[in-house]
Amino acid sequence: MIKIAILGFGVVGSGTAEVLTENQKIIEERLGCEYSIKYILDLRDFPESPFADLVVRDFNVILNDPEVTVVAEMMGGSHPAYDFSKACLEAGKNVVTSNKEVVSNFGVELCEIARKNGVRYLFEASVGGGIPVIRPMLNDLASNKITKICGILNGTTNYILTKMRDEGASFADALGEAQRLGYAEANPSADVDGIDAARKIVILAALASGKLISPKSIHTEGISSISLLDTKVAEALGCSIKLIGQAHVSADGLCALVSPCMVPKHNPLSRIDDVFNGILIDANMVGEVMFYGPGAGKLPTASAVVADIIDVIAHMDSELKTINWEEAVPADLTDFDSFSCARVFIASEALSFADDVTVVKTAQLDEAFAYLTAPLTEAQANDISQTNKNSIISVFRAL
Amino acid sequence: MIKIAILGFGVVGSGTAEVLTENQKIIEERLGCEYSIKYILDLRDFPESPFADLVVRDFNVILNDPEVTVVAEMMGGSHPAYDFSKACLEAGKNVVTSNKEVVSNFGVELCEIARKNGVRYLFEASVGGGIPVIRPMLNDLASNKITKICGILNGTTNYILTKMRDEGASFADALGEAQRLGYAEANPSADVDGIDAARKIVILAALASGKLISPKSIHTEGISSISLLDTKVAEALGCSIKLIGQAHVSADGLCALVSPCMVPKHNPLSRIDDVFNGILIDANMVGEVMFYGPGAGKLPTASAVVADIIDVIAHMDSELKTINWEEAVPADLTDFDSFSCARVFIASEALSFADDVTVVKTAQLDEAFAYLTAPLTEAQANDISQTNKNSIISVFRAL
Repeated sequence: MIKIAILGFGVVGSGTAEVLTENQKIIEERLGCEYSIKYILDLRDFPESPFADLVVRDFNVILNDPEVTVVAEMMGGSHPAYDFSKACLEAGKNVVTSNKEVVSNFGVELCEIARKNGVRYLFEASVGGGIPVIRPMLNDLASNKITKICGILNGTTNYILTKMRDEGASFADALGEAQRLGYAEANPSADVDGIDAARKIVILAALASGKLISPKSIHTEGISSISLLDTKVAEALGCSIKLIGQAHVSADGLCALVSPCMVPKHNPLSRIDDVFNGILIDANMVGEVMFYGPGAGKLPTASAVVADIIDVIAHMDSELKTINWEEAVPADLTDFDSFSCARVFIASEALSFADDVTVVKTAQLDEAFAYLTAPLTEAQANDISQTNKNSIISVFRAL
Repeated sequence: MIKIAILGFGVVGSGTAEVLTENQKIIEERLGCEYSIKYILDLRDFPESPFADLVVRDFNVILNDPEVTVVAEMMGGSHPAYDFSKACLEAGKNVVTSNKEVVSNFGVELCEIARKNGVRYLFEASVGGGIPVIRPMLNDLASNKITKICGILNGTTNYILTKMRDEGASFADALGEAQRLGYAEANPSADVDGIDAARKIVILAALASGKLISPKSIHTEGISSISLLDTKVAEALGCSIKLIGQAHVSADGLCALVSPCMVPKHNPLSRIDDVFNGILIDANMVGEVMFYGPGAGKLPTASAVVADIIDVIAHMDSELKTINWEEAVPADLTDFDSFSCARVFIASEALSFADDVTVVKTAQLDEAFAYLTAPLTEAQANDISQTNKNSIISVFRAL
């Protein structure tokens, strides 16, 4: 009988308990062994919960119980989540997590500690919520060199951008609606400023390259300055504005960034709307594959956490190669401006005669389109930006 | 040093040799061990190939060589592919394959022989070409009950339907173009009659339910009777016609079928065009996820074959639970007409005043739409079909 501990009984933690219980019969059949949840760590009481009796407040109860071999960390934030995960791994316990903040900042160290202690540190749920993406990258694309990853990695911002495009809502109104529905936090900065997406893209970039870049060090633009006019211009150009995390891996090095992009309609990411996520991967043998699904939410994210728990249990007696990352150093990185990843400049005078983009003259749209398709260097971009300082409405990268 | 044999040096077989060689360095790094291709079985000579020296004509050379522990079968067809696969498994060799005909017809027996001999029989490349779907279903969705699978599983028919919709090509012209481009065989029946898709959907249904249905026994409609008028009506209804393989798993039983369907534009499958495949999976915890990518082709399919080879090598010393299917018996199955899966009837008199669907009266489109959204039983469907025998142009299921 495998004994599991859950750290943090919030949305994903309680979802994990629910998935483990609701689907217990089929999971045990698939595993060929039984399991139970022994502890749930939280500072709060949950008198109404069917799991109330399992709640403990002292982490050491879990750490010092040799029966517990699998720990699911869903506390969020860096501390004490990182510290507890590290202690569990050092004590020879397997750890699975949905915590992208910890994985993106401490992944190298935690994977190494896991390896040294003969256990595993898995984090499928840290990117794309319930969407299978990390394990498929490691297993199904193992015959490939992954060269490029482009993803809609944050459901909250995608919901806001979809509302703006389809319903003409302003950024502020769409954000308010997202908060009302529980998609966005009271302080929405981690989502709308691209910080959440930055954590996720550095994890995906590390899976492709073996090098983990600090999420704070990558170019990160959010969506708060995007106007309704921008979304209309995008529409007129045959594009959707999406917040894209992208990573490029080549012989020259690795690059990751987060920015709003003009995504042309023929790109499958342009049609990933609302709170859904999509991750498009280019690899040297398979070409382009995409993974799509719910990028957040209680049960979807818990589905991925429990997939990791199943993976751990199924391979408990096997000697598996575990993830071996290194911290990226400056020599590993290329500048994002060296990529032929165009910027689109929408100048206000081109639109000044009307707010309604549908009446913008074709010639001016053609001009915008030329920017869309012609790659610019950062130097060129700055030139244009300086020259037309007062006329620039928005600057977008294009996929 | 792991020794690999390739059976069949056609498109996928030669692609597999290419992937194993081209990405050898990174694959060996990931595996932590070395491998080489020892034999390629084919009746032809390939004097121009860099692998010419490895070609043998006698299967027994491979079967009787204890050094060969991994065999990749890419011969196509049932015989001798099935016989050779069985012999290899019985001799304690792992077998990986892209052969959906063999897996869909003999999968139960071959998985059982593999299990009894402590080896594995893997077939990621048999469905969706290079798209990761089988291993993600088994691993990443292991925490879920899979309740429904809907997929565009055949690239050739999807190419034809896309040509008809977007370029107004007739079925015959689009098929001719597909043949010219090498997407369709000289005898296109396996593709256009839905036989290939039927083999794939029974494999996916078995992964979800544990029961393998004979592909010949499921309801299978192809696309050869679809007219340009049908595609125009679909467009007017806000739908795309797609050849869909679907499987439904419930407490009542299992059902699989292949048919052209009206797919509404909000369904992500409606936007999977050309030779691409997409597989949408509904599962009880994660909700809806989709896998998208190249459903065929030399290197994409080989990418999946080599992923299986890597999986086999990585777990060679582990005791893994292997696939355990049973043959589906009538009691396992539910009739496909018990599903609330609507049929759309397009009656010719509703359209008789013009060939151009864009001028069809709103009232008549509304009527068609009512069919689209109202589920009909097979009995009702037959009634309508009888009553309006001379006026029915086409009958479609709707997703």
